Order: sequence, then C-alpha cells, then structure tokens
Amino acid sequence: MPELRQDPTTNEWVIIARERAKRPYDFLLDREVRLLPDHVEDCPFCPGNERLTPPEISVYHRDSDRSNWIIRIIPNMFPALTPKTTTEEKLVDSHFKARGGFGFHEVIIESPRHNETLSEMDELHVALLIQAYRDRYAVLSGDARVKMIIIFRNHGVTAGTSLEHPHSQIVASPVVSACAEKKSEIAGSYYNRTGRCLYCDINRWEIESGSRLVFGNDKFAVFNPFASRYPFEMWISPKNHQASFGNIEPADISELGKVLRESIRRMNSLLANPDYNYVFHTAPVEEENAKHLHWYVQIVPRIWTVAGFEIGSGIYINTIVPEDSAKFMREV
Amino acid sequence: MPELRQDPTTNEWVIIARERAKRPYDFLLDREVRLLPDHVEDCPFCPGNERLTPPEISVYHRDSDRSNWIIRIIPNMFPALTPKTTTEEKLVDSHFKARGGFGFHEVIIESPRHNETLSEMDELHVALLIQAYRDRYAVLSGDARVKMIIIFRNHGVTAGTSLEHPHSQIVASPVVSACAEKKSEIAGSYYNRTGRCLYCDINRWEIESGSRLVFGNDKFAVFNPFASRYPFEMWISPKNHQASFGNIEPADISELGKVLRESIRRMNSLLANPDYNYVFHTAPVEEENAKHLHWYVQIVPRIWTVAGFEIGSGIYINTIVPEDSAKFMREV
Repeated sequence: MPELRQDPTTNEWVIIARERAKRPYDFLLDREVRLLPDHVEDCPFCPGNERLTPPEISVYHRDSDRSNWIIRIIPNMFPALTPKTTTEEKLVDSHFKARGGFGFHEVIIESPRHNETLSEMDELHVALLIQAYRDRYAVLSGDARVKMIIIFRNHGVTAGTSLEHPHSQIVASPVVSACAEKKSEIAGSYYNRTGRCLYCDINRWEIESGSRLVFGNDKFAVFNPFASRYPFEMWISPKNHQASFGNIEPADISELGKVLRESIRRMNSLLANPDYNYVFHTAPVEEENAKHLHWYVQIVPRIWTVAGFEIGSGIYINTIVPEDSAKFMREV
Repeated sequence: MPELRQDPTTNEWVIIARERAKRPYDFLLDREVRLLPDHVEDCPFCPGNERLTPPEISVYHRDSDRSNWIIRIIPNMFPALTPKTTTEEKLVDSHFKARGGFGFHEVIIESPRHNETLSEMDELHVALLIQAYRDRYAVLSGDARVKMIIIFRNHGVTAGTSLEHPHSQIVASPVVSACAEKKSEIAGSYYNRTGRCLYCDINRWEIESGSRLVFGNDKFAVFNPFASRYPFEMWISPKNHQASFGNIEPADISELGKVLRESIRRMNSLLANPDYNYVFHTAPVEEENAKHLHWYVQIVPRIWTVAGFEIGSGIYINTIVPEDSAKFMREV
C-alpha cells in the first residue's frame, strides 16, 4: 500500500509508492555507455586550451608538481547571474517585482583529465576540490550583496550538463530563495519550541533507527532521508552542529571528501554509473551562525522524471521505499 | 543582462537569462519523430481490449453513436494513492510523520484512437473531455477524506508517460500539499490587504500590458506568466473570479476546450510537437469558494532540464524572456 510521508524540513508530503518491491536493476536506464578519452583536442576545459576560457580566478596544484594545475576555477562563460549588472529593484508593468541579475557564477574544473570523475580521484585530489569550494564560498560570501550561495555538480546530459569534462559550479545570489526562507522558518520555529536544531535531531533519529542509514564516520552521517523525493537520494550531514558549509573545519575537509567519494562510488556501483546531481544546501549568508540551520550535501541520481502531478502539486512520487534503497546502498 | 523576477503567487524568484536573444528553433530537441498507428493490437487503452484494464468507472459517447465510447475512465492500474487503504496518521521511528496512502488515482482515456491527441480532436470531443474532468472532480470531491484534486496530462516519454495512447490522469489526495498551502497563504494575505483576488489582478495586469499575452476570448486569458519558470510556459486563466475548476459553468466548458486546444496547437506549431504536461491548479476542496483563490491551467512544454541549481535553491533558470516567447506564440 502507498504511504504519504512528510519531510520535516519543508513540511511537504511525498508519496512513497509501494505497489511492488523494487530492486536496483528496476531503475537502470537504457543508456549508451561511452568511454571518454583522457584528453579532447577542442575541449575548453582540457589543459592547453586555457585560452578558450576567460582568465582563471584561481588554480590548485599538487605540492609535488607546481607547474600543472589539477583544479582550475573560471567565470562561467554563460552566467546565470553576473557582477556586470546591479541588484536594483524595479517594478515591471507597474505591478511585477524584478531586480537586476547581479551575482557570480563560476565553474570549478575538477581535473585536467577529461575523463577523471570524483569517484576515481585520489584522496588528496578530492580534498582539494572541497577546499576549492570552501575557498570560493569564503570569497563570494564576503561581498555584502551576496545573500545565498549554491555549490552544485551536474553529471551527465539528463542531469543538465552540456560539457562532459568534469566540473562543478558555484552561484552567488543576491536573494534568498523563497524555498530557503521557508526551510529557515520551519527550523526556526522547531528551535523555538524545542531548543534544538531540527537537522541535528534528524541525524540523531536516523542514526538511532539505522534503517535508512547508508554509512558514516565520526564526522558525517549518510542516509536516504525519511521522505526522500527521489529514489536513492542521499544526504551527507555533519554530525556536529554547523549552519554553514563556509564554517567547515580544515580537519573535516578531507573527511567530507572521502565520504562524498564513497557515496558516489556506492551509487555508481548500484545503479551502473547514473547521471546525477549533488548540491550543497547551506544557510543563507546572513544566517551562517544560526543555531537552527544546518548544512548538508544532497546527492540525487537521475532515475526519475518530474511529471504533471509533481509540477501541479509539489508532491513527488518516489517509487522505492527509502528503507529498501538504504539497505541496497549499505550492502554494496 | 540576466534579470531576477518574483512570482507573485509563490514569492519564489526565477532567473530570466538574457545572454542572447533566442528563437523557437533554439529549443527544438533532437527527437525521433514516430507516426503512431490508429489502433494497436495489444494496447490496453485501445477499443476491443477493455478486458485488459479494470472495469470502467464511466464512459462518454457521441449522441450520434451510443454504441462506441469516445472517452473512458478507469482506475489507474498502478495507483499512487488508493481507496484500499486508510488516511491513518502514524509516527515512524517515534519522530517522523506519515499517513496511509488513501486516495483515488484514475485514468481518462481520451479517445478510442491510439493516435488522436487533443490538438486534433473536434470541438465536441474536447468539450466532452473537459466535461469528464469536471464530472470526476464532482464525484471525488464529494468524499470527505479528499482535500485536494490534481488533474493533469503527461504527453510523451520525457513528460513522464509510459503509455502512448492519449490519456489524462486525476489524483484525489487526502492532504493539501505544502506548496498549495503556501500559495493560499500568499493570496490570502493579498486579499486581506487589498480586498481583491491576486489572480484576478494578475489577469488584469497581463491584459493591460499585453506584452506576455498570447490570445484570449471573453472568458479566458492565455499568457506566458511574468516569472515563468519554464520556457514557453502558458497559463489559461478564467477572467471571472472562480476559485475551483469544480465550479466551472456548463457554458464555459466548451470555451475552455477551445482555448486549451488552441494553446496546444500554437505550442505544437512553434516547437515542433514537443512533449508537454498540462495541469489544472485548483483550490483545495475546502476552499472551493474562496475569494482569494483562482483556478488556472498551466501548460509546460518539456524543453528544459532541472539541474543541481534548481534542486538546491528552488530558483529556476528560464532561458527565454516571457515577453519574447509570448510574441512568438502570438504570431504563430
């Protein structure tokens, strides 16, 4: 029988369809598998083609090789938001609210190798990638006009990427989204009622139950959330309270890298290297030290379709029970 | 330069990317075009195969031919929600809220012909389809456990359908979604402030401006909303105040059919028969006569991808300016 579950962080309902027990191979898509080359002559992100992109913002090297970058950060050539305009508010047609599309949109080229994805990188490389995210967070959040920062990765065409060379993106926005405001309201009212962070409690509940837990270490818990909108969705959540990813301790950076890599490896193994997104949910800049907010990384394999029901209602239908998907992910 | 626009009905921001002027052919996807046959031997929705589906809930005929159905309504064989369970609330792992997946999920088979879509139907047939929606709305909303009704159509694989025989769906839910609650709050507070329905005002603003208007008649306005999340998104909104589609006047049913068909024809002509969804946004059952709510039909061609940015922020990036898309749709 189907079940409705309420996401405690958004209050939104999710339908967990239980019409039949599914196994991971029920989610495998009929996809063409292409092996990518190590280097592509005309790829703007491959070494030697640096002139095809805007000048770099920063680069990262291995200590052992200072002459070749392993991570390179550039402005997005087709930015969603840009520092070349303002945040000025205006009324369109006397009634509709708009403002200038000021902001920053950067691309983090994750590797010089066209075919090296995060799941294959060594520990140091993954740690440098997380370090790069944190460094850019620190710089961009220093601009007083920036209110919200989104770090994300689109892997594969169905996940929304057009360039196959491994890269992540970071967008700094001059507004806090209504979604993020609502999450802050819900967690704020929970804090006022209980004196506790909702997300710290969720971590504790998930660890105590264990039924949706995938794995974890001293610092991070990885689980399929109770009201997962998407099949095999994972959250990586810091066990200690922390509202903003920007405040991550240097010692936790390589831990996060290891946990992120392990999560993606499990997903790849179970679902045959699906397209996926991951995204860092982190407190709005002005709430970086909030007691009621908590950052986490959400990983979403692209094995679902948004249809009219979801567009119309906001209620998603998840075709696998999170307890089942977590069990598969634990046993990989 | 990009622009941020705020949707007055949700308060959510949308990024309107203006990096270059786009034309409709920039959105054409590389798709295999398949001509469908009129009848498919093993299609469960084709006439003669009625035994392959659960018994019908109701059928519609033409007056001139009482022996053959032209619309047939059946329970969904793989329902998202089902009357076979309860709405009972429970706590899972002592903390998480869930409830039984009670509800109704029906399929409206729109035509006996495997290849006849709404854009090709005659006026009487489209009117009967809208009538069928309204009739099912009336029956399902009569169940005291039903709080919200979603009528929608998924056209094509990328829009989330698995069966190509033309059909729509109707889901009756025992909960009001958090999304719908938020829209009601926003419109309620607008009503308290101004004494007017927000959606009636939006209709008036769109008609006065004309820049995002596609077409209209005495009863309905069709426009690309100011803060369209999706390229070429259309709203069909009744000009007279009406909170619930369930209250549509009999005289307006055939008018709506004509406007819906014309909207889809324009979209098909401009975007080469894209996959699409449409969905009826209508007031929760208990707010059917609300002064602050207003039903409308949203049509969304599937020429976009949700990526990590949208999943993480709730802010969508629309790559065409609604004033431009509306101009193309007006000039078809």
